[in-house]
Amino acid sequence: MSARLALTEKILVNKARLGLNWKQIAAELGTSSPIIYTSALLGQFPLAKEEAARAAHLLQLSDADAALLTTFPVRGEGCVMPPTDPLVYRFYELIQNYGMAWKELINEEFGDGIMSAIDFNMQIEREPNPAGDRVKIGMSGKFLPYKRY
Amino acid sequence: MSARLALTEKILVNKARLGLNWKQIAAELGTSSPIIYTSALLGQFPLAKEEAARAAHLLQLSDADAALLTTFPVRGEGCVMPPTDPLVYRFYELIQNYGMAWKELINEEFGDGIMSAIDFNMQIEREPNPAGDRVKIGMSGKFLPYKRY
Amino acid sequence: MSARLALTEKILVNKARLGLNWKQIAAELGTSSPIIYTSALLGQFPLAKEEAARAAHLLQLSDADAALLTTFPVRGEGCVMPPTDPLVYRFYELIQNYGMAWKELINEEFGDGIMSAIDFNMQIEREPNPAGDRVKIGMSGKFLPYKRY
Amino acid sequence: MSARLALTEKILVNKARLGLNWKQIAAELGTSSPIIYTSALLGQFPLAKEEAARAAHLLQLSDADAALLTTFPVRGEGCVMPPTDPLVYRFYELIQNYGMAWKELINEEFGDGIMSAIDFNMQIEREPNPAGDRVKIGMSGKFLPYKRY
Amino acid sequence: MSARLALTEKILVNKARLGLNWKQIAAELGTSSPIIYTSALLGQFPLAKEEAARAAHLLQLSDADAALLTTFPVRGEGCVMPPTDPLVYRFYELIQNYGMAWKELINEEFGDGIMSAIDFNMQIEREPNPAGDRVKIGMSGKFLPYKRY
Amino acid sequence: MSARLALTEKILVNKARLGLNWKQIAAELGTSSPIIYTSALLGQFPLAKEEAARAAHLLQLSDADAALLTTFPVRGEGCVMPPTDPLVYRFYELIQNYGMAWKELINEEFGDGIMSAIDFNMQIEREPNPAGDRVKIGMSGKFLPYKRY
Amino acid sequence: MSARLALTEKILVNKARLGLNWKQIAAELGTSSPIIYTSALLGQFPLAKEEAARAAHLLQLSDADAALLTTFPVRGEGCVMPPTDPLVYRFYELIQNYGMAWKELINEEFGDGIMSAIDFNMQIEREPNPAGDRVKIGMSGKFLPYKRY
Amino acid sequence: MSARLALTEKILVNKARLGLNWKQIAAELGTSSPIIYTSALLGQFPLAKEEAARAAHLLQLSDADAALLTTFPVRGEGCVMPPTDPLVYRFYELIQNYGMAWKELINEEFGDGIMSAIDFNMQIEREPNPAGDRVKIGMSGKFLPYKRY
Amino acid sequence: MSARLALTEKILVNKARLGLNWKQIAAELGTSSPIIYTSALLGQFPLAKEEAARAAHLLQLSDADAALLTTFPVRGEGCVMPPTDPLVYRFYELIQNYGMAWKELINEEFGDGIMSAIDFNMQIEREPNPAGDRVKIGMSGKFLPYKRY
Amino acid sequence: MSARLALTEKILVNKARLGLNWKQIAAELGTSSPIIYTSALLGQFPLAKEEAARAAHLLQLSDADAALLTTFPVRGEGCVMPPTDPLVYRFYELIQNYGMAWKELINEEFGDGIMSAIDFNMQIEREPNPAGDRVKIGMSGKFLPYKRY
Repeated sequence: MSARLALTEKILVNKARLGLNWKQIAAELGTSSPIIYTSALLGQFPLAKEEAARAAHLLQLSDADAALLTTFPVRGEGCVMPPTDPLVYRFYELIQNYGMAWKELINEEFGDGIMSAIDFNMQIEREPNPAGDRVKIGMSGKFLPYKRY
Repeated sequence: MSARLALTEKILVNKARLGLNWKQIAAELGTSSPIIYTSALLGQFPLAKEEAARAAHLLQLSDADAALLTTFPVRGEGCVMPPTDPLVYRFYELIQNYGMAWKELINEEFGDGIMSAIDFNMQIEREPNPAGDRVKIGMSGKFLPYKRY
Repeated sequence: MSARLALTEKILVNKARLGLNWKQIAAELGTSSPIIYTSALLGQFPLAKEEAARAAHLLQLSDADAALLTTFPVRGEGCVMPPTDPLVYRFYELIQNYGMAWKELINEEFGDGIMSAIDFNMQIEREPNPAGDRVKIGMSGKFLPYKRY
Repeated sequence: MSARLALTEKILVNKARLGLNWKQIAAELGTSSPIIYTSALLGQFPLAKEEAARAAHLLQLSDADAALLTTFPVRGEGCVMPPTDPLVYRFYELIQNYGMAWKELINEEFGDGIMSAIDFNMQIEREPNPAGDRVKIGMSGKFLPYKRY
Repeated sequence: MSARLALTEKILVNKARLGLNWKQIAAELGTSSPIIYTSALLGQFPLAKEEAARAAHLLQLSDADAALLTTFPVRGEGCVMPPTDPLVYRFYELIQNYGMAWKELINEEFGDGIMSAIDFNMQIEREPNPAGDRVKIGMSGKFLPYKRY
Repeated sequence: MSARLALTEKILVNKARLGLNWKQIAAELGTSSPIIYTSALLGQFPLAKEEAARAAHLLQLSDADAALLTTFPVRGEGCVMPPTDPLVYRFYELIQNYGMAWKELINEEFGDGIMSAIDFNMQIEREPNPAGDRVKIGMSGKFLPYKRY
Repeated sequence: MSARLALTEKILVNKARLGLNWKQIAAELGTSSPIIYTSALLGQFPLAKEEAARAAHLLQLSDADAALLTTFPVRGEGCVMPPTDPLVYRFYELIQNYGMAWKELINEEFGDGIMSAIDFNMQIEREPNPAGDRVKIGMSGKFLPYKRY
Repeated sequence: MSARLALTEKILVNKARLGLNWKQIAAELGTSSPIIYTSALLGQFPLAKEEAARAAHLLQLSDADAALLTTFPVRGEGCVMPPTDPLVYRFYELIQNYGMAWKELINEEFGDGIMSAIDFNMQIEREPNPAGDRVKIGMSGKFLPYKRY
Repeated sequence: MSARLALTEKILVNKARLGLNWKQIAAELGTSSPIIYTSALLGQFPLAKEEAARAAHLLQLSDADAALLTTFPVRGEGCVMPPTDPLVYRFYELIQNYGMAWKELINEEFGDGIMSAIDFNMQIEREPNPAGDRVKIGMSGKFLPYKRY
Repeated sequence: MSARLALTEKILVNKARLGLNWKQIAAELGTSSPIIYTSALLGQFPLAKEEAARAAHLLQLSDADAALLTTFPVRGEGCVMPPTDPLVYRFYELIQNYGMAWKELINEEFGDGIMSAIDFNMQIEREPNPAGDRVKIGMSGKFLPYKRY
């Protein structure tokens, strides 16, 4: 297990032990979205130095841990593919079932290129519904065209 | 290659040969979303009998092909995982990089359960932007709670 | 593609073209359960000679096809694992999430051994429910104990 | 090994060392089914705070362990696929041999959709039989229809 | 599909169509064991020229097919691993469950080396038993010691 | 590494350190076959309480270890597939080369069904031979017929 | 085999039969780089309508083939990973051996982000060298920074 | 985790804790390229004895660690394939999308052979660009022709 | 199946049908080693134009086939890994069992680098031996040192 | 990590720390080839008791380690396939590119059978060459014919 993955485990255990939740943690760390801060603590984004210091204080981490939180992580570590967890798997299923249609429709609308996963932002919200509340996800990624040369 | 996959190939070739596009095809088939019709023609949704007849007419398919379009397809056929196509891969990458954070935040907000990929709808739109237009995706899936028994 | 898989494809296409359904087909073939006959036509059980003749007649298959239906099939051909189809995948998910608990509880109740998947029968029924009908599945497999020697 | 998997190992070792069985443990933890409690202790369901406290007391776990038992687990961790254990494998074999038939019959009866693995319950019972007792499994999952939009 | 695999499919289809069985076929081909002849026709042993001629006559194969039956086959083609067929899988399961014990006991008895799978012979017999007949398999392989140099 | 796999490692190390062999150990543990006892100590069979106590004494294991030896193991743990060890691999090779022939011959002789790997016993013997001694393996498994319902 | 892959095979066979080379073909098709045109004919870029018409003329393809050349291809089809061909494998090896260092150095120089593989261009040249000519490759990809939101 | 991989982890943690960067480290170690030194510390090149001593001093490693840095590493350890990290994945994507074209063009220019990944050097530079700076990579590998014998 | 693989199949079938052997074929094609010519016909080396013409004549191939034989093949196509054929598998086993030792000894003798598989030649001979003839293989590959830059 | 793999790591670390080389070590252990002793210390051969004692003395191993060195190892542990290390990979590549030709030529010369990897020996030598020294490898394995029964 990499040092960064071990730190993710420590963060999850300490968060449980201390009774914290992600929204609280995000609010303490800074002004970015809870998605950014949760991802960062799970090893998918680097934190700025002061953010890392606050995270270390809140989650009872060492100075070495805080230093590690500021490094550029090896993204994707810690997410098994195909996902075994049903919540995460459903997104994988969406790709299997809709992925080729997304490609056809995005190419038809925008031409040859892709939606960036880097110049990208997203929100997750609760959508109240009498038949059962819904998870509402909004994604926006820059269209990047392939260029001839 | 399954009969349904072979039909998908035939549809793609005929669409190219006939110079059709998905939006036109969808508008001719009925009143559902282009995402539904594109997915259906790619083997991810069954069509109603009249829709299949219209598709067969438009895409120069046989009666047997039209019959096949009304059957319940084996979803997921025809999408290689991990996706080799960059446009489709970016969605896979989003799961690898954000999946565990999505899980943490959805569980924190809704409790133990998942976002349904069945009671689910979505839209893809062009989001004009001076720094380059963006692909905007909206998803909405019913939250399904695990129940104790 | 094996000759038997190609026959399965032919059966599925002809069934669609002829507008048949599995319950009708099963009723015509003999007195076993529709699960047996559907599985058999999908390449998971051999048919008796007369059953195969009736199937060939009903589904417009050749004599060679009928002969093939009476052979011992290579079971498991034609089902991709992990299943890409959401309906089939949910059973796979049940194993991932409950499999180890099933093992613990069956071993605790019966001792060291397994539930047979050979001396086994099952039913699938509709369970009416005001909150949405349910799929009810009943399985019964002989417990086979490991024996010391 | 994730912190939650390590806790599962600790639970299994302590259970063996203390001579406990799952039925006893379930009866002590609360009023849900032994399937729920066994799954939960194996990392497939979160426990309520008091349940976790009782589990920790019974199985000689620490407070941090108890906290971990109340978190939303990454389901599916700890079950190797394909299963190497014969008892668990037989369920996998059932999917390989019957899965496509289940799909055909459920789609034919209910239309386009799936059996939920979330809005789902099950029982495992001993079925006495002179030729050898049988394992009887009952499953019931809500049918979820795909909807057009 | 390789030419040899396609020939295996043709042999299986013709055997079914002609109503032949392996014991008959083996008796017609020559004096070796039915295991040898069945394996050979399934692409796991080369046949002698006259044996191939007899096989071609019996199974209605072409001269080119007969020539192909005399070539050194790429053994192992046509057997999916792990086996999806329950009968074949049980042998795979025996390796998973007993393989390391076989190693320990053979090494303890014979020293450092292996049982040859080349200088090897075997028989399969019916073992009558009032509690249900049994499949009796006898294997004998030369022990090959690793040598120092 | 699971607690049971770690115990297997400890058993192998202590056996080496104490200069024991499997035949001796088996003779001390009870009256079952050395195959059973070797497999059990490698994590493939549970031991009875007294057997586990004797094993713990002989191999210098702790009481917790002895308790673990009496639990129902997750069979198949600890055997990599395909096997990297040549001795174990040869059995895997036998399946690849002969598996489909075994299926054809057993189905032809017994009908539709399998050889049980549960109601199963086996022996390994030295077969003296002037050209080099041979490993002789005898297996006997109950034939289990598929039943119609 | 997808229709596009089959067309790639046809292009390679016709190119060989007609004695053409990629540089000639590229020069005839238009003003983009030979890398673009070679990739396009191998199914990795769409061609403009007139380019496709010229390619069809040159390589003796049908009108339907020409239409297919103008569609948005499923990139990555037709390249096995890991590559079995030594020339292609060496690039794979470079990633295995240098990939993590590239990441460290690019992140250190540019911050958190990636080199685009879409807004990307490259050249391949012969670098004369008395000790043996060298393959010189130049790549340039836009740096895309991850953005906070 | 191998001893060398564990040392890589230690190096990454100490580098973060000590606030060092790769360019500084490389400048202190010797006169080779930062790519060589970064790769070496990540386990992809051996260091000379004095270089290892300097690295150990700088990164607070033990004498045993320094000795390990001088050994011939098992290259490729520590880089998961396909890469989960987006920065590293983009290079993998380049192979999938361009690899077959590279092969065609290099073979056409140089004949039958490969570009060496051993007699190979490379540079990574920042290419200033008003539309966003670019990552510029130059690679040069000796062409190695296959020879007849 | 690629066009080149299909040609390999045709060559193997025609060779069997025409009763040719590789040594004869090699002698007719030119002056290189039978290893080169056998590999080339199996899709692992390009042939010169006249060699291809002779091969086409000898093996009754078409002009298009001959043209294909002169192209640069995608090496490695047609060899399944791990090899299912016992003869080929034994070489794979040698790597698994000796590969790390080869690395240690070659690095110790030559320094940091590899044995080239491109600037490489080999012979296979029969080594007569009263205890059973032996296969004698000689390989010689240029040592390629990694260079610092 | 198995106990034997952990011992291999310890041996590699101690060898580096103590500044030993394999030729020295081999000369101290006994009269077999350095290939045998290097392989044995890497977990691919058992050592005799006295050899293990000498190895333990030389490499500063414990008595338990020495005992472990005399056991029959699980060969193949510790060599990742496909090999990520370029030196080891080149042998893997040789199989991919030449394996089917080796099979054809050995079968043609010797008949149906294999080259033994057990009754096998080999040498690695430096072959001086003005164009760059070469690695010369000689292998000799007994031909083992398949026998009819």
